[in-house]
Amino acid sequence: MPILNKDMQVCISLAARPSNIGTRFHNFLYDELGLNFAYKAFTTTDLPGAVTGIRALGIRGCSVSMPFKEAIIPLVDVVEESAAAIQSINTVVNDEGVLTASNTDYEAVASLLRTHEVDPTARVVLRGSGGMAKAVTAAFRGAGFEQLTVVARNTRSGPALAEQYGFDWVATEQEAPDADVLVNVTPLGMRGADEDALAFPQDRIEAASTVFDVVAFPSETPLVRAGRAAGKRVVTGAEVIALQAARQFERYTGVALTDDQVRRASEFSRAE
Amino acid sequence: MPILNKDMQVCISLAARPSNIGTRFHNFLYDELGLNFAYKAFTTTDLPGAVTGIRALGIRGCSVSMPFKEAIIPLVDVVEESAAAIQSINTVVNDEGVLTASNTDYEAVASLLRTHEVDPTARVVLRGSGGMAKAVTAAFRGAGFEQLTVVARNTRSGPALAEQYGFDWVATEQEAPDADVLVNVTPLGMRGADEDALAFPQDRIEAASTVFDVVAFPSETPLVRAGRAAGKRVVTGAEVIALQAARQFERYTGVALTDDQVRRASEFSRAE
Repeated sequence: MPILNKDMQVCISLAARPSNIGTRFHNFLYDELGLNFAYKAFTTTDLPGAVTGIRALGIRGCSVSMPFKEAIIPLVDVVEESAAAIQSINTVVNDEGVLTASNTDYEAVASLLRTHEVDPTARVVLRGSGGMAKAVTAAFRGAGFEQLTVVARNTRSGPALAEQYGFDWVATEQEAPDADVLVNVTPLGMRGADEDALAFPQDRIEAASTVFDVVAFPSETPLVRAGRAAGKRVVTGAEVIALQAARQFERYTGVALTDDQVRRASEFSRAE
Repeated sequence: MPILNKDMQVCISLAARPSNIGTRFHNFLYDELGLNFAYKAFTTTDLPGAVTGIRALGIRGCSVSMPFKEAIIPLVDVVEESAAAIQSINTVVNDEGVLTASNTDYEAVASLLRTHEVDPTARVVLRGSGGMAKAVTAAFRGAGFEQLTVVARNTRSGPALAEQYGFDWVATEQEAPDADVLVNVTPLGMRGADEDALAFPQDRIEAASTVFDVVAFPSETPLVRAGRAAGKRVVTGAEVIALQAARQFERYTGVALTDDQVRRASEFSRAE
């Protein structure tokens, strides 16, 4: 990477607990493509102040993670339709002082449903009702899926999410109907306390045709491994995180990425 | 330079017209010393917003250039005494949300007067009455100089500056008394419209013992060249800009620099 220079455009991220993924993904591609950009993860305890700083310093773009995805909405100027529907933002682009917000998680999931050729007539069971579950559920609806059951113990966010998209809600996995597509948008299987947890029971996995785990770390979660072992179509959180970053990259720089570039940047971003 | 990472501390600069000097100086030394820092020049049309951003993003340090050196004073928390006396700031350090301001131009000039062994009993004539002239004049006073004449056509800032430090003021160079030390803090000799201008007449240069040109670009101004040709002690603006950047570097990182490191970083910063 060349030494920084005054003319570089700067993109940042804001998260309570920044990871190195975005910083490595974007800078890898800036370097490879010879773009005069730099990317750096930040955290903040003052989101309005951080957005004021983005405007005042002319920062080109900002990736937004937990817990800022909803709180940033009133601080931007324009919210793209798909992000407005979800009420969750993960991308802000600064065009000469006009901040436009979007949700590339939504776009990434919608795109993966197409490229993995997941049949929209399939019956879906989706675990989770947090911010990311909103984006994923919206993407299933946007892709034309009509049979989806949200499984969430939270009796407020669970039914609310299901209702918004005309889907069903149940509180526990045991209550969920049979499914062709199993989607995990909970921390089950994520590095940490729940890393050994299998998000769906083995018999459900065997009965399904597709397993989709949004957990990105590790990429080989218990659910992903079980899906692969059972010979199912598998969509991973590593694919989601790479593709959403690629869509951010394209918005920030105006440069479209090839699949190979996304794949190599993703590998670099995960190898520390 | 290693690819950026999330844990890097970030320092920035704010100027109406950023140069590449600071960005190259600081990043060169971060790289050489293996410090996990990155430095990037910015401009802004919203100084309060930029300072809000420095706080909200936890930016470690900020170098301040024209035209923000006075306007930033009410936006920081602590102003070091030397900077408060001059009412001009060029450095802000962020210690966990507490912004402390200082003026390393003042420190650099004071230091150069010592290392070049300029005799404090010498008679000084100094051209200029802008922000930088304030720092230079204060440094002469701080170094114990008692005979100094400010030459400035501006009939407000000229007499005000002289009076603040108990010095004399004259409007034109022709009215100035004989001098041992000639100091230029005007744009005369600077790259651009005045680049061929010699800030003091040849007979004055020959009568003096020391020539001090604060103009940094080019480093070899007509005054510097004339001083060298006449065999005088010469202090250059390139030395000032390097030393003030070194003092900033030390405040931001806590790492003291050797003369050799400052010299090499300065050479790197000027070679584009």
